[in-house]
Amino acid sequence: MTFRNYPMVSRVVFGRGCFDQMADIIEPQRLNDKAPFIFIVDDVFKGAASITSRIPTSYSDEIIYVSTKEEPKTTQIDDLVEYIILKHKARPAGIIGIGGGSVLDIAKAVSLMLNNPGEAKDYQGWDLVKNPAIYHVGIPTISGTGAEVSRTTVLTGPEKKLGINSDFTPFDQVILDPALIKNVPKTQWFYTGMDCFIHCVESLNGTFLNTFSKTYGEKAYELCMEVFLSKSVDKKIADEMLMMASWHGGMSIAYSQVGIVHAMSYGLSYVLGTKHGIGNCLVFNQLEEYYPKDVKLFRRMMTIHSIDLPQGICANLNDEEIEVMIEVAFSLKPLWENALGLNWQKKISSKDLYKLYRKI
Amino acid sequence: MTFRNYPMVSRVVFGRGCFDQMADIIEPQRLNDKAPFIFIVDDVFKGAASITSRIPTSYSDEIIYVSTKEEPKTTQIDDLVEYIILKHKARPAGIIGIGGGSVLDIAKAVSLMLNNPGEAKDYQGWDLVKNPAIYHVGIPTISGTGAEVSRTTVLTGPEKKLGINSDFTPFDQVILDPALIKNVPKTQWFYTGMDCFIHCVESLNGTFLNTFSKTYGEKAYELCMEVFLSKSVDKKIADEMLMMASWHGGMSIAYSQVGIVHAMSYGLSYVLGTKHGIGNCLVFNQLEEYYPKDVKLFRRMMTIHSIDLPQGICANLNDEEIEVMIEVAFSLKPLWENALGLNWQKKISSKDLYKLYRKI
Repeated sequence: MTFRNYPMVSRVVFGRGCFDQMADIIEPQRLNDKAPFIFIVDDVFKGAASITSRIPTSYSDEIIYVSTKEEPKTTQIDDLVEYIILKHKARPAGIIGIGGGSVLDIAKAVSLMLNNPGEAKDYQGWDLVKNPAIYHVGIPTISGTGAEVSRTTVLTGPEKKLGINSDFTPFDQVILDPALIKNVPKTQWFYTGMDCFIHCVESLNGTFLNTFSKTYGEKAYELCMEVFLSKSVDKKIADEMLMMASWHGGMSIAYSQVGIVHAMSYGLSYVLGTKHGIGNCLVFNQLEEYYPKDVKLFRRMMTIHSIDLPQGICANLNDEEIEVMIEVAFSLKPLWENALGLNWQKKISSKDLYKLYRKI
Repeated sequence: MTFRNYPMVSRVVFGRGCFDQMADIIEPQRLNDKAPFIFIVDDVFKGAASITSRIPTSYSDEIIYVSTKEEPKTTQIDDLVEYIILKHKARPAGIIGIGGGSVLDIAKAVSLMLNNPGEAKDYQGWDLVKNPAIYHVGIPTISGTGAEVSRTTVLTGPEKKLGINSDFTPFDQVILDPALIKNVPKTQWFYTGMDCFIHCVESLNGTFLNTFSKTYGEKAYELCMEVFLSKSVDKKIADEMLMMASWHGGMSIAYSQVGIVHAMSYGLSYVLGTKHGIGNCLVFNQLEEYYPKDVKLFRRMMTIHSIDLPQGICANLNDEEIEVMIEVAFSLKPLWENALGLNWQKKISSKDLYKLYRKI
């Protein structure tokens, strides 16, 4: 058996207000006055001076706002890379992603593709990247996805929704400022937080579990329980706890694997463009048979936070669309193997998935 | 307020037997056939073929056995560096430490000093190192110290016992193989494990505590409780849990600080050469006033594992010796500030320390 040799984030700073240390942190990486820092920022912050005025731009540095209404696409990465290359006189000194999981994944992918030829879709898969990424920094403004610690960047390509999994993917620097997540709208806060909770559930209940992952997963799970079930935790502290839950939950799956929820959620997103957080929740809600205790807890969390999941998303789709979802879901073999063991194909069928998808 | 920007271990592999992945991991770092890998190995493994036969030496690679009967000294580092430079035709491609906290600290210090002029004592302190270390790998064979994740390397110099704290100190690679710690003698297993427990106690009860450190510290604390208080945990699983407790406990203090136990234990070691693990236990046992709940737990752990602490270590020392201990302990200001707050000098006096030391 060969164990994964996991590439960690090189540096991490944590603290309320540490966003303002960004200039001190990135300036030593500035190669010359032509090589810009490119800040890839969630467009919800467009015009939000409380954030944008604190982004330390100089010389030809540029802020690029990206929409996160849809999941990141390989073509979006290619367009961004082309734009940056054509616009600037030198290869950037660094890429700084400021946003939720989508923005962090875009920042990771752009930093990789600036140093690797071809198109982003060519690198969807495992260890296909040849050259190290440009220096890249992740600053989460929503917590839960674990994108800040992972060695993947999940992209929807022409043929599949699959990450660029590479030792060069993790950030060189992560800035964890819990003050940044305080204004996330309630539903997004919940759906993204549930991504973390589901990571823990899938990691802790998976056959790939090991003591390394278990310790991270248990802590993140416990933090999620406090954040989403307890009414006595102060909002500020809850934000800090959720930020750390995302971090530890990310480390847990990094060294194990996700499971059925993520496999099926990828199918849903691929066909309907459903955002990852809500997609996970829609799927998880139907998986009582596989994760009984935790689906019950999840429903309690929904009740406490007055979350109404959309209904009947897949009821009126045609069979071909459901078939594509099933195909995408089943293509993610390691996720099924983790969830159900080596013989997973004997334990779940297309028919089972068909029924589950129809209920969503 | 400026928050610490913590340099993390670059890569980590975890798993029973992953020691055998060492060759695959380090070979890509071999620069040429003249630049050797230097394996710094605890001399308890001398002649232990089950370990030594699996160390992948080739070309002019060398295994250097070091005694860990005493705490590492700055002069020992200088001697090792001089020996390596005189003996080999090229600067080493890497330093691999295989052992407990002392060996890991020696490996870190040697890898730093091979790339920095002068003597090791010149770098005791914070951020005095100018050049990055040589590629260095840490392989713990005893768990608890957290040396595998920290940015320090604790050394006894001519004037002080103090770490080389630097962003260049952390390992480029850590190999966590729980099978390696199975044969640690009982008392050493206990004393070193207690180093981890005490890290958590000092971090979780300190004024420097933050949510980042808290989440790591709580998990490590909980793991220590299971390992040292529960009788139902399988030894293999307990070894894995202790290895992860050391890792998380190390991360917890890395982002906060230790406290009274470590300050006083440094004084003890400086004067008497007491090893760090047992030194901590000797001090902790007298600190019921400061850490009441946890000293009680510690005593229960001692009872369960039939540990008899040596008695009367300091009873017959002369006053000058005790004065030096007090001086060394009080020189570690951040530790006292963490333990007792900004006004710590009003809360504890030389007289208090004198009494405590005399009881040891």
